[in-house]
Amino acid sequence: MNQYRPKDMAVGLSESFKVTITQKMLENFLEITSDTNPLHNDASFAKERDYKDRVAYGMLTASFISTLAGVYLPGKYSLIQSVETKFVRPVYVGDELTVSGTVINTSEAAGQSEIKVLITNQNNEKVLRGVLKVGFLNE
Amino acid sequence: MNQYRPKDMAVGLSESFKVTITQKMLENFLEITSDTNPLHNDASFAKERDYKDRVAYGMLTASFISTLAGVYLPGKYSLIQSVETKFVRPVYVGDELTVSGTVINTSEAAGQSEIKVLITNQNNEKVLRGVLKVGFLNE
Repeated sequence: MNQYRPKDMAVGLSESFKVTITQKMLENFLEITSDTNPLHNDASFAKERDYKDRVAYGMLTASFISTLAGVYLPGKYSLIQSVETKFVRPVYVGDELTVSGTVINTSEAAGQSEIKVLITNQNNEKVLRGVLKVGFLNE
Repeated sequence: MNQYRPKDMAVGLSESFKVTITQKMLENFLEITSDTNPLHNDASFAKERDYKDRVAYGMLTASFISTLAGVYLPGKYSLIQSVETKFVRPVYVGDELTVSGTVINTSEAAGQSEIKVLITNQNNEKVLRGVLKVGFLNE
């Protein structure tokens, strides 16, 4: 787990990790949210609307922003203040996503950093674009 | 499950539901994300920083925006395009949250609606404020 402090958050600092979307993740997300929407739970419904299979919840893909902030950038002392996400392409079970964050703005004095988030799939297609603002817990 | 279509999305239309945050939800979220950040996993770490217990992941609270869109507003034909969230107060295991959405802007022609999201706790304190943009799948 990284432990970046405000002084370490240089503009351009970047961290990334990979994660493969599993059926178990969709089941866990359904258990948390009770979001029974058929796009995410009924392959026939999704296929009738030109998706190749049931689609992973957008907010499930967005969940990895939690990991990005809490483990990678800034890591241990992260305190998420806000998140903006755009869902630009569907994600399916089996997709291998690369979640990356880059510091685009930072104030050591305010103890706040702005991080651009990009999530791409195994075909290097963007599936999610976002911006994350984080503060810092005391050491 | 509601089935609002673009023509039904009048400005001011509102839907809400309640959910209680459980330890199992945090476990499921950890299993999905591998976000092992101590603020969410180590009560001592959180208490040393003036939280009353370990804090629920902000993105776990934000996950209920998926339910709001996919089940309630607009429901079955929802297609989430973007989400903006601000985390304004910590959420703990045992908190009973009210998740509510209100249509603030809509275009029947474009098939797109903007929904203001508010999540409050059992003390009627705001814990999350957000804006959700949704499109619509074919019937």
